Amino acid sequence: MADSTLPSDGDDRSFGDRPLELTRTEKEEMVRETEARVLDHLDRLPDGPASNVDGAHERADELREPLPEESMPYDELLDTLFEDAIVHSITNSHPGYMAYTAGGGLFHAALADFIADATNRYVGTWFAAPALVAIETNVVEWFCEMMGYPDGSFGLLTSGGSMANLIATITARRERLSEDFLDGVIYTSDQSHHSVTKAAVLAGFPSENIRSIPTGDEFRIDVDALESAVEADRAAGKEPFLVVGNAGTTNTGAVDDLDALADLCERESLWLHADGAYGGFFALTETGKTQLAGLDRCDSITVDPHKGLFLPYGTGALLMRDGGALARAHAVEADYIPDWDPDSGTVDFSQLGPELSRDFRGLRVWLPLKLHGVDPFRAALAEKMELAERATDCLRDLEPVEIVAEPQLSTLAFRVEPSGVEGDALDELNERVLEEVNARGRVHLSGTTLDGRFAVRICVLSFRVHRENVADCLEDIEAAVSEVTK
Amino acid sequence: MADSTLPSDGDDRSFGDRPLELTRTEKEEMVRETEARVLDHLDRLPDGPASNVDGAHERADELREPLPEESMPYDELLDTLFEDAIVHSITNSHPGYMAYTAGGGLFHAALADFIADATNRYVGTWFAAPALVAIETNVVEWFCEMMGYPDGSFGLLTSGGSMANLIATITARRERLSEDFLDGVIYTSDQSHHSVTKAAVLAGFPSENIRSIPTGDEFRIDVDALESAVEADRAAGKEPFLVVGNAGTTNTGAVDDLDALADLCERESLWLHADGAYGGFFALTETGKTQLAGLDRCDSITVDPHKGLFLPYGTGALLMRDGGALARAHAVEADYIPDWDPDSGTVDFSQLGPELSRDFRGLRVWLPLKLHGVDPFRAALAEKMELAERATDCLRDLEPVEIVAEPQLSTLAFRVEPSGVEGDALDELNERVLEEVNARGRVHLSGTTLDGRFAVRICVLSFRVHRENVADCLEDIEAAVSEVTK
Repeated sequence: MADSTLPSDGDDRSFGDRPLELTRTEKEEMVRETEARVLDHLDRLPDGPASNVDGAHERADELREPLPEESMPYDELLDTLFEDAIVHSITNSHPGYMAYTAGGGLFHAALADFIADATNRYVGTWFAAPALVAIETNVVEWFCEMMGYPDGSFGLLTSGGSMANLIATITARRERLSEDFLDGVIYTSDQSHHSVTKAAVLAGFPSENIRSIPTGDEFRIDVDALESAVEADRAAGKEPFLVVGNAGTTNTGAVDDLDALADLCERESLWLHADGAYGGFFALTETGKTQLAGLDRCDSITVDPHKGLFLPYGTGALLMRDGGALARAHAVEADYIPDWDPDSGTVDFSQLGPELSRDFRGLRVWLPLKLHGVDPFRAALAEKMELAERATDCLRDLEPVEIVAEPQLSTLAFRVEPSGVEGDALDELNERVLEEVNARGRVHLSGTTLDGRFAVRICVLSFRVHRENVADCLEDIEAAVSEVTK
Repeated sequence: MADSTLPSDGDDRSFGDRPLELTRTEKEEMVRETEARVLDHLDRLPDGPASNVDGAHERADELREPLPEESMPYDELLDTLFEDAIVHSITNSHPGYMAYTAGGGLFHAALADFIADATNRYVGTWFAAPALVAIETNVVEWFCEMMGYPDGSFGLLTSGGSMANLIATITARRERLSEDFLDGVIYTSDQSHHSVTKAAVLAGFPSENIRSIPTGDEFRIDVDALESAVEADRAAGKEPFLVVGNAGTTNTGAVDDLDALADLCERESLWLHADGAYGGFFALTETGKTQLAGLDRCDSITVDPHKGLFLPYGTGALLMRDGGALARAHAVEADYIPDWDPDSGTVDFSQLGPELSRDFRGLRVWLPLKLHGVDPFRAALAEKMELAERATDCLRDLEPVEIVAEPQLSTLAFRVEPSGVEGDALDELNERVLEEVNARGRVHLSGTTLDGRFAVRICVLSFRVHRENVADCLEDIEAAVSEVTK
């Protein structure tokens, strides 16, 4: 067969250039430039501000542009990124970052993704890359082990906790309800992450079937109130089927009484999902294990390696006590994909969740855990818990600070409550405390609403946050309190 | 306030070590080693096999291990990866890879993820990193422009096409149906990707409400049959609401008559979603634009930058003609997240989809498009279409090959049909053709089932696949055909 009809290099000049295929020299040069910028950026991190969003809106507007028809030199793109775009943001990777819930971003993961992207194998099906799928399988099994799950448990990696909560909700729906599921009722607490409600709505449940159960003094779900709600719903002809417990809330790190929830769910035949996006990995520590007692009895658990294992954003996980549930809930066959037998000892992650093609997330977890072993992670998590505990002790001694939420894991919340200041004025005062602390730029905190009133949170989680950063934080809080109450 | 209760470096030795915080020297050394392995791997790619899974199952088994308690040197981990795990797989990044639907994996994306991971900013909300969110916003707007979408369109980046199809299905459900949606009916063709059915099931639709409409000669949906099905469903009291058209099927690259579908959907007030995971970006080319006529009339489009823009796995996108639909379908408020006004000119991606925390996907698209401009992408896509066209011409001349699917974009399917061979024997013969071709190791193809019979596919898509690789492919097919028909 002649291939004379194929375009050749000679007679088809438009295909002669191959600019997307960088030469080795080009690649080396780009790595060199990128590495220098990244490492300089990381070196400067501790001395730079924990947040730098002044003028960021304007810079963002300047960056909006139509589809580029022209090429631009790589170093100019790096200028844009490192001198302009990246630095004008909230510095989630900063050692003073104790806002929201951030792991910091281990450098190892950057190397792992560099490898995964450049080599670009496909890990959604076992047959395409068995050894790489085995690496990701290991990671999932390690997570199950960390949670105290038994043999037969399994799970999958996701982009983050919200996606894990969505997949958990859909899986519970498919396992426990018929296709006519609109009477199904889901129970969360008033402290649950909004992704739980969002997941329920996206999974198809009417919003009126999502119950927000009140919490008690320590922001833990009121199990008696939950039980009453379940009874009332059953009496009304509804189908209670899913309870979402908190293994560390975003607001205050509160851990629901998971054993009591597991008892109730066993009695009532309800699926118990634990949202451990923030808190799950504290199960690696002795104190955390005590706080999280009952976690291993939950039917499913969301954990976020990009929180509790300090990875950069982009890696969550959903774990299932009965690993087979995911395959049952998601399996669909297709002509162009070889059949998969769930009992074969192989794993087709694409048949365990909604994603087919996606990034190789396992490597970014595997690499740091293999390089260091699990001990440094365990020690770092214990350090964060202890720092939160001691920071609380210090704040307790500071007038007129009230601790609104004691740390159950590594998050606490407080409020400045000078006598005579109440209502909206109290909110404004505490918002000013937060602003004053953040304006100093050494640390970055965030606020939330607790019992209807604004409170300031400290979440000690990033692997970069140590004793000296918490000391800075306390110093800046003291100064801010003094400023707003003078 | 004394911070004497805080652990100090001196009195709390367990927190003295900080192994997770690599020194600059450690980081430099790790980058150096990683770079060398990756670049050597890429250099060897063209001369290595397009697939190398012999013994891969055993290697995978050897890699399964319990949670690592010990540390391991980085170079040994790289040995495991580069000498064992990565190379024993199907080489999706190989210039001879024309199986399934793979973009190859631009090296640029590895640098982008390296930057994104190491700097670890949060791009789910505008206020956290305005300029980085602007970069991702640009990317989404560029995609809308590429599809011919008008002002007011918008979208979001996903992990891949399956997730985009799921979000599209949920959004259409929320836009077009009430919370009592179980009578809603979804129409796909018998050539649609299985993720469409999976998305419908996960989004809560009873499986009996998912219609697989037959396709005609060129594997395009039979629009008359679709219209009849819609009428029949309405007559039966069902609620037709969503049609999923194909803008390039996975099987053969078939493009449904999107204009006819748009006409029908307008008349019947149905949401029209186009699955352009494989085909969408061919709209960048003149020929592709003609093939995809009507794409800009679809209510939503799935595209996969990790296919048509040659990125490594992990980047899909969902585009909406009415950009506001995503916010309406997904917005949920939370105490700890500042409110977002969709009309503010800012973008909170976390309020447009199911994900809150996730990776910064925009950078891996932005970097190569800014570096090269869009032209090399346009030229590469035109090259792929032309190569598929000419390969088909060559195969047509090869006895006893029958072209089962002419390339509408850059995918074709063929079958070897010696006279007298029919039924299962014909399937076996063509499976042997596929095995023989792949066994030679220069190219990698995949098979599928068309009209109930096995067929061999060629999908010319990776940026690394050029004239010489297609010539290799044709040579190996000729040899395989000669072998199995002798």
